[in-house]
Amino acid sequence: MSDFKVTVLGNGSAVPTAHQHPSSQIVKMTDMQLMIDCGEGTQMQMIKYGIKHRNLDHIFISHLHGDHYFGIFGLISTFHLFGRDTPLHLYAPSELKDLIGHQLRVSHTTLRFPLIFHSLEETGNKPLLVHKNYRVTTFPLFHRMPTWGIKISMKNEDLRIDKGFVASFNPTIEQILKIKKGEDFKSEKGVLFKNEEITLPPKPALSYVYCSDTAFNESLIQYLENATLLYHEATFDNTMEEMAAEKQHSTSEQAAQIAKQSNVGKLLLGHYSARFEDLSALLTQAQSIFPETLLSEEGKTYEIGI
Amino acid sequence: MSDFKVTVLGNGSAVPTAHQHPSSQIVKMTDMQLMIDCGEGTQMQMIKYGIKHRNLDHIFISHLHGDHYFGIFGLISTFHLFGRDTPLHLYAPSELKDLIGHQLRVSHTTLRFPLIFHSLEETGNKPLLVHKNYRVTTFPLFHRMPTWGIKISMKNEDLRIDKGFVASFNPTIEQILKIKKGEDFKSEKGVLFKNEEITLPPKPALSYVYCSDTAFNESLIQYLENATLLYHEATFDNTMEEMAAEKQHSTSEQAAQIAKQSNVGKLLLGHYSARFEDLSALLTQAQSIFPETLLSEEGKTYEIGI
Repeated sequence: MSDFKVTVLGNGSAVPTAHQHPSSQIVKMTDMQLMIDCGEGTQMQMIKYGIKHRNLDHIFISHLHGDHYFGIFGLISTFHLFGRDTPLHLYAPSELKDLIGHQLRVSHTTLRFPLIFHSLEETGNKPLLVHKNYRVTTFPLFHRMPTWGIKISMKNEDLRIDKGFVASFNPTIEQILKIKKGEDFKSEKGVLFKNEEITLPPKPALSYVYCSDTAFNESLIQYLENATLLYHEATFDNTMEEMAAEKQHSTSEQAAQIAKQSNVGKLLLGHYSARFEDLSALLTQAQSIFPETLLSEEGKTYEIGI
Repeated sequence: MSDFKVTVLGNGSAVPTAHQHPSSQIVKMTDMQLMIDCGEGTQMQMIKYGIKHRNLDHIFISHLHGDHYFGIFGLISTFHLFGRDTPLHLYAPSELKDLIGHQLRVSHTTLRFPLIFHSLEETGNKPLLVHKNYRVTTFPLFHRMPTWGIKISMKNEDLRIDKGFVASFNPTIEQILKIKKGEDFKSEKGVLFKNEEITLPPKPALSYVYCSDTAFNESLIQYLENATLLYHEATFDNTMEEMAAEKQHSTSEQAAQIAKQSNVGKLLLGHYSARFEDLSALLTQAQSIFPETLLSEEGKTYEIGI
């Protein structure tokens, strides 16, 4: 099982239904988790699907339509009431900072933990977050207000060691770690093995891209190219292309088209309009263009990579 | 079945649990419904329990702790997206007005319907709402910030007509309506019946009172006296009296005590702390003082009166 995966907490759009909550998801990595978007009720969805507060220190808000951020007030309040004292980093359009401040004043709340706000407008092309083996970057989407796509790339810098070599020469754990970092190896008999003789390149980098909300636009391909998993909105079906254009959303076919042109590994659809009782048409339409398409389901976890 | 009842949508306190949502309830009358408080997720609870938007034109917010108002943004947004064009009256502490305005600006929303804001600070002792046969008034509670109790009184001014008289003299519908309003009746043979000979007084007035959040204080009795049904917070149990005093909440026993001293008909407990997995101790403690106590359950509807 991969240690890079995403749990969908909400895949509805502006109006919730009995089965679709507003946007939110949790991206899990080895020792941490990130939240992307935080629609109303996200904290209840976390309880329902067993998402813990631990190691959740970074929240990204794609844009300021209510179905992507109305849950942030309650989540922050709950962190506070649970006695959190570690910093929470919030990456969002700048206007959210004042709105949260206003709400905290109105409810007479002085947070017990540092809330560190990062304005998406100010980060430009710089990665929002850089870690040993992953990085988070953003890019502009095409919606009715400033909206950001989010890309999480996970890179394992370690070389893969040749199994035949290990079986023959039985290096120690310490030696193996050094070889994975690029060092040569000298056997007990004094034979030198150059690093490139006994290693293979690192595993390919994995990446997850979140695109919601956006109209179809080919200029996104540069950011989506070769992503392992793409979550893309499919608010409408193919009969509603005009409405999608007007509201700057995508149809299922457009989501599949951008996935295909970007050569992604898999496509995960979401942000479904409340009008669909049955989502199978969205899936069929998308799969006719890009067969590796899945319908996201709330509460379900998707591996990013193998 | 009475046409005056309350459906509890959320009876949790500051932190939600798997079974307890933040405060909200719907009071239903013959041709209308009112909402009291609107915690996060209220619109999803409305969907879950089949509460329609129709005839919901008045929302009351008791105070500005998040668990009593974080759902108002999403509910207003959903009304807007559903194309509502009739006025919505919001009765709340004045600071909520600016906060809603701020949120609407941030999310680029111009409401399609008139949102008519009534500051609770400004209404003083005047009823918030007066209708043919009910009225809504507020009174101050004892909490860490300005907080209002809400009382809905339903009065049927119509006299009750004597059934024996109806059977004997067979008055027309029109005559019955006039008698109920206090008119005398003249029979076909010209015999005059004075109104008081053929009627009984109107049914007793019914009233519902909502008290959340508040510390115990006997000065509340004047507002609670003889209420048909009292919803009262019982955030803590009797072992936590000190904490209740510090946080200006009530224990289950204090809720029962004020119900008893106010001679209410029934007491409905709510606003339970998330720490209780089992609520039966709260009930037992309250019933030892005031036997006519019930534990509120989410999604359940309680008759106000017979």
